[in-house]
Amino acid sequence: MRVPLTPLRFLYRARDQFGSKVGIVDAGRSWTYREFSRRCHRLAAILSSWRLPAGSRVALLSYNQHPLLEAYYGVPLAGGILLPLNTRLRAADFRHILNDAEARVLILHPDFLPVVEEIRRDLHSVRRFLLLEPGPSLDWVEPDSYRRLMETGECAPDRDIAGVDEEDVAELFYTSGTTALPKGVMLTHRNLYLHALEVSLALGIREEDTQLHTIPLFHVNGWGTPQFLTCLGGRHVLMKRFHPGDAYRLIQEHGVTFFFLVPTMAISLLNHSERDRYDTSSVRLINLGGAAANPRLVERLEAAFDCRCVAGYGLTECSPVVTLSFPKSHLAVRGERRLALQSMTGYPIPGVELALLDGQGRSLPWNGSDLGEIAIRGDGVMKGYWGQAEPEPTAGNWLRTGDLATIDPDGYVQIVDRKKDIIVSGGENISSLEVERVLLAHPGVLECAVIPVPDQHWGEIPKAVVVPGTPDGVTPKELVSWCRRRLASFKVPRIVELVSDLPKGGTGKILKRELRKRG
Amino acid sequence: MRVPLTPLRFLYRARDQFGSKVGIVDAGRSWTYREFSRRCHRLAAILSSWRLPAGSRVALLSYNQHPLLEAYYGVPLAGGILLPLNTRLRAADFRHILNDAEARVLILHPDFLPVVEEIRRDLHSVRRFLLLEPGPSLDWVEPDSYRRLMETGECAPDRDIAGVDEEDVAELFYTSGTTALPKGVMLTHRNLYLHALEVSLALGIREEDTQLHTIPLFHVNGWGTPQFLTCLGGRHVLMKRFHPGDAYRLIQEHGVTFFFLVPTMAISLLNHSERDRYDTSSVRLINLGGAAANPRLVERLEAAFDCRCVAGYGLTECSPVVTLSFPKSHLAVRGERRLALQSMTGYPIPGVELALLDGQGRSLPWNGSDLGEIAIRGDGVMKGYWGQAEPEPTAGNWLRTGDLATIDPDGYVQIVDRKKDIIVSGGENISSLEVERVLLAHPGVLECAVIPVPDQHWGEIPKAVVVPGTPDGVTPKELVSWCRRRLASFKVPRIVELVSDLPKGGTGKILKRELRKRG
Repeated sequence: MRVPLTPLRFLYRARDQFGSKVGIVDAGRSWTYREFSRRCHRLAAILSSWRLPAGSRVALLSYNQHPLLEAYYGVPLAGGILLPLNTRLRAADFRHILNDAEARVLILHPDFLPVVEEIRRDLHSVRRFLLLEPGPSLDWVEPDSYRRLMETGECAPDRDIAGVDEEDVAELFYTSGTTALPKGVMLTHRNLYLHALEVSLALGIREEDTQLHTIPLFHVNGWGTPQFLTCLGGRHVLMKRFHPGDAYRLIQEHGVTFFFLVPTMAISLLNHSERDRYDTSSVRLINLGGAAANPRLVERLEAAFDCRCVAGYGLTECSPVVTLSFPKSHLAVRGERRLALQSMTGYPIPGVELALLDGQGRSLPWNGSDLGEIAIRGDGVMKGYWGQAEPEPTAGNWLRTGDLATIDPDGYVQIVDRKKDIIVSGGENISSLEVERVLLAHPGVLECAVIPVPDQHWGEIPKAVVVPGTPDGVTPKELVSWCRRRLASFKVPRIVELVSDLPKGGTGKILKRELRKRG
Repeated sequence: MRVPLTPLRFLYRARDQFGSKVGIVDAGRSWTYREFSRRCHRLAAILSSWRLPAGSRVALLSYNQHPLLEAYYGVPLAGGILLPLNTRLRAADFRHILNDAEARVLILHPDFLPVVEEIRRDLHSVRRFLLLEPGPSLDWVEPDSYRRLMETGECAPDRDIAGVDEEDVAELFYTSGTTALPKGVMLTHRNLYLHALEVSLALGIREEDTQLHTIPLFHVNGWGTPQFLTCLGGRHVLMKRFHPGDAYRLIQEHGVTFFFLVPTMAISLLNHSERDRYDTSSVRLINLGGAAANPRLVERLEAAFDCRCVAGYGLTECSPVVTLSFPKSHLAVRGERRLALQSMTGYPIPGVELALLDGQGRSLPWNGSDLGEIAIRGDGVMKGYWGQAEPEPTAGNWLRTGDLATIDPDGYVQIVDRKKDIIVSGGENISSLEVERVLLAHPGVLECAVIPVPDQHWGEIPKAVVVPGTPDGVTPKELVSWCRRRLASFKVPRIVELVSDLPKGGTGKILKRELRKRG
């Protein structure tokens, strides 16, 4: 008696088992899981009334607010594929994505009307534009807003689970494009169901947990939260945009127990002037991801929130979480070693297997020093890229990540660099991440990125772009001598540029591509 | 990139991620997960050397010791189907099961040679008998024992996961036969994989956990422990047979954090004279199952072990766990209400849906009073019964359990009785479980069972068979008047028999069938 794996089962469970519990909180409003489910079913009814073909792509261009969470269930309830868009992209990106995905519907916040107006004549497939909130009356936009339709609309019936093909695509996410043109990552019902079970098991998430949505839901499947927190009946607390002051207020007000952070968010929380005014004692776990962490950051977060803080690694192609850096009990690590380990990439969550491959695809030993490409086999690994042939089938269906790493004898991974971020200088490979880690350890550095710049003699040389962390400043000379004491000489940045900020993508990920363009 | 779901992935994960951790402890010996994996691969090599056809049933007749745990992985590694036998069955049961399953191999502890000798000429399919430990030299038994072969044998290679069909049967378990002839329950690789993720998520099991194997592994998939604890890299502590003194010693010695209990085990732990001599502070969770619990038992266990104690419900056909009775946080239950709720059946774990059906298969409301049959749809629900046609497909693939229950508006189930244990007296339905609960609340009652006995006037009348709990005794008259004050008069037992013990199956489950036969 095989029951198809689909996240829709999580919605039904939340409604049936936690119907009277407040499940969603957003800007002073809240909904029980019964009410939330009703709203999802209303969205499904709206989409069904438009008679879209099965599998139609429904795009959302929304801040990190409750309608986006509703779409995670409302769209597949109606048989559609959810396509969340990163609000920080530009008009040309939206045009590329919407056309590439052949989206039929675009649901958008009125704030994004100008950018959509710019490109709407180039959108070949979009038939319906629906505003989330009442806005200007335009002939190409649906007359009633999402908010209005939610007040009056009918509810669609439950989609019969037995009729769902678990291998069908449920969500389409475009990669952040730090290295190339955005590609659509196809996540199936099965991917999302299994990833939810596995990541929440690895994190130890419980029904009692309340999670603050620091990471936008439109970003790489909201790191799995839309599915796993709903499945377990935990509580979602949304925030329109990340802001440290708002985060502190929401943590105190709703007894938040858990959240994800990228390092730049973590730094802004730690540096927030009114930090001590808030009670954050409910927090028990913080998961850092999206960029390299360091032991000091883990230490400061654990001290500030009196909680456990672990790092991790994921990619859109894996739904996204791949590893988490919990210490393994038998290693009995303490003190500095524990902090170092928790700031590393970690080890795979259940349902994920890793391999370390050399250039010829042969397995390398897990000795903590051999550097290889990480390959992943797991339940969250995507069906493939939208509109492209299946990813080249390698033996046993391993996804090649392009990420270079070591694995130590205890199974802990350390991502050393993106393959494409390796700087090749005089025939030597330089890991930009390694150099960044050394720079970040300097007390005067808040953020930094190391990029290659062309050089006649060496081919490429490393350049550091640094945001100083202290008002009295730090000099390029000082940073070069800091690196010289800690790195092989060929790895020391030849150029250090001090800047006031770095270009960033949707979740604060530094866009090295932009820096490289600037040179 | 779909990766087949199979518990073999849990073995590989334990080996690769927890290779140096002590994973298995048994009678003073211990093995790391790397060593354990090697033993599983040796068993696979033994089986492969016999060139058994794929899907051959390999039966184990073993105490609750490490070779049985090894067989959970070694048999499917070799492409076989594991058939664990309940050591408390009689020769005729073994004959029925081994012939019905057409087992090819029987691996047995030498203690069971006499019972197997009795029936071996009737065993049509068994080709190989392998002793777990050296025993008498017999011409029908393999010359070398399992123990000997483990010392010298080769390891089979990993079974290629990509080649596993997740819908193939991995384990075959015969139902305990409380109501009918034992039937073989077919659990697939997919069932076992998903059940493991889901039950451990619901229980909140972590890598740091150490579980004592109080429930024999041969009983209904060891309640999922062979899979979930291995997947997470937790530690298994085995005990040959359950004995309260041994349990206390092992809890103290190995820092046990979690175990399952049936109520009779719980009572024997609580009544153990040397209880206070042991440090049990490591225990954080006890899960009661297998029979009706009551609030006093939950209270006494929580006090004795200073831990959380919850009840649950499962059946072989569901891999087995279906519900657990954790309080839902938004209900904020306290005191007596909390104990009552934790002693109830609970609510479904992730991946399981329940329905409450009337005699015509229509859904009944969840109002805490309408009594209906529990139907289950979930990832752990078996493929079907061995050798029988697929279970009659009902709409949406629901398994009809024959268990009668109410569901309250908060989603909590209360199993009231097995359909077949309902006593029909003068046209009124009497729940034997309800009467048992009233009797168990009497301080002089240790255990009891209520069964129907034929009656010319009433058709059936309820009879109580009671084991007194105090040395000074309790009289039948006193118990009848106790019931009269608490039950509708037609439910009061007409006959009360005092006995020194009750007939029990493999895990201490009371065999009402035996009692009914005696009348």
